[in-house]
Amino acid sequence: MNLVLLFKDDFIDDFQTVRLTGRRFEHIRKVHSVSEGDTLCIGLLDGMTGTGTLTRLDKHSLEMTVSLDTAPPDPLPVTLVLSLPRPKMLRRILFHASSLGVKRIFLINSYRVEKSFWQSPVLQADNVRKQLILGLEQARDTALPEVFLKKRFKPFVEDDIPGIIDGSRAIVAHPGVPDFCPSDINGNTTLAIGPEGGFIPYEVNMLVAAGFSPVNLGRRILRVETAVPVLLARLFTPVL
Amino acid sequence: MNLVLLFKDDFIDDFQTVRLTGRRFEHIRKVHSVSEGDTLCIGLLDGMTGTGTLTRLDKHSLEMTVSLDTAPPDPLPVTLVLSLPRPKMLRRILFHASSLGVKRIFLINSYRVEKSFWQSPVLQADNVRKQLILGLEQARDTALPEVFLKKRFKPFVEDDIPGIIDGSRAIVAHPGVPDFCPSDINGNTTLAIGPEGGFIPYEVNMLVAAGFSPVNLGRRILRVETAVPVLLARLFTPVL
Repeated sequence: MNLVLLFKDDFIDDFQTVRLTGRRFEHIRKVHSVSEGDTLCIGLLDGMTGTGTLTRLDKHSLEMTVSLDTAPPDPLPVTLVLSLPRPKMLRRILFHASSLGVKRIFLINSYRVEKSFWQSPVLQADNVRKQLILGLEQARDTALPEVFLKKRFKPFVEDDIPGIIDGSRAIVAHPGVPDFCPSDINGNTTLAIGPEGGFIPYEVNMLVAAGFSPVNLGRRILRVETAVPVLLARLFTPVL
Repeated sequence: MNLVLLFKDDFIDDFQTVRLTGRRFEHIRKVHSVSEGDTLCIGLLDGMTGTGTLTRLDKHSLEMTVSLDTAPPDPLPVTLVLSLPRPKMLRRILFHASSLGVKRIFLINSYRVEKSFWQSPVLQADNVRKQLILGLEQARDTALPEVFLKKRFKPFVEDDIPGIIDGSRAIVAHPGVPDFCPSDINGNTTLAIGPEGGFIPYEVNMLVAAGFSPVNLGRRILRVETAVPVLLARLFTPVL
C-alpha cells in the first residue's frame, strides 16, 4: 500500500479528517508502524492525492487530517478487451492493469474460455473492485477502472465494438501474425487479448473485420498475465 | 504447455523415441486430448525444438517419435539482479522471467528483504527449476535459466557485480530518480530491481558506484512482478 485510498464515508467532518478501521488501519499500523504526527501518502477515490497527518491512533482505529492537492498519475489511454482468464489469473490481471493505469476493461467470452470461469466468485463486483483498489493503492492512483462483463462474443463484436474502438487504434495480440506490436503509440488504443490457446481464427477474423490490426509479440507465447504488462509497456510511454 | 519439454532420460532408444508418464503425460492426455498419429510441439532441454508424433497412448504413458530441427527462440541478453521477493511472488516472477527469455538471475539480499523469505521452500532448487521449466514450456523455449542465491548484499556488489556487469549496460530501476528507463537497447544488460519498498539509499548508492544507472518507470510504483515484464518489454525488442 503505497497510497492509502480514502472514500467519502471515511470523513468524520467536512473533508478535513478521516477515521480508518479494518484493513487499511491494520496495514498502516503493522506495515508502516506509524505513530501520531507521522504523514502518509493518501488519495481520495476518483479525486486528488496528497498527505495525511496522523492525529490519533489506538488499538481499533486511527484518525488523520488530510490535505489533497496533487492530481493522480495520468491514465493510460487504453481500453482492454480480455477473453475471460481463469479466475486466479484474472485476479492478478485486474491488479496489474489497475496499477498500470488502465481505466476500462471488457471481459468477454470466446471459444476457448471455459464456461465455469463465468461462475467464479472472483467475478463478483466486490471482488473485482477489491483487486482494482489494491492496484490503485500500489501505484498511488485514485481513479477506479470500470469493468464490464460481456458473455456473448458475436453480439459484443457486432454491437459494442464499433462504439468502443471509435477514435482509437484497435489492436489484437495474436501469435503467428506477420506484424510486430508497435511501440510508444501513446494515443487512444483498444487492445484485445485472447484466452489461453488464443482466439480461434473465426474470432480473429471477426475482430479484424471490425477494425482490429493483429500484431505479434515475437516467437514466445506468453501467459495472459505476462502479456498484459508487456503489451502496455510497449504501447505506452509512462509520463513522469 | 505450448511445448512439451523433453529430458535425456525420456528417450527409450537413440534419440528417436520418448516415453512420457506423470505430469507431462497427464497434461497432454487431458488438455490436448490427443490420439495416436497426432503431433505436438516438443523441445529437448538445452537443445532444439521440433515435432513429436504420438505412436502409442495408454492409461499410464505415451510414446512419441521425435524430430528436433529448429533452434529455440533467442534468449534476452540480460542478467536479472532481484532483491529476493516474497515467496508467492518469487514463484510467479521465475515463471515470467523464464517465459520472457531471461537466462541468468541473481536473487540477492537487501535491507528490506524479510529474513524469513530465505527459508521459503520456493527457493529450493527443485521448486525453482519447476517454475523455470513451466516458463520454458509456456514460451516454447528449451534453454534453462540459471538462478544464483546471494545472501549478503555488500560482498555481492563488491565481489560479484564487477564480473557480472562487465561488457553490459547496468541499470537499476528505482522510483523517483530523474532518468526514464530507456527503450529497445537490445544489447547486453544487467537489470537490478529492488524489493517491495525499494532499495535503501545506501544500496542504490553502492550500485551506482559499482556502475549502475538509476532509471524510473514513471510516477506509478509497480509491484516487482509487474515491473519485471514491464522493464523487459521496454528494454528489449523480441525477435521473430
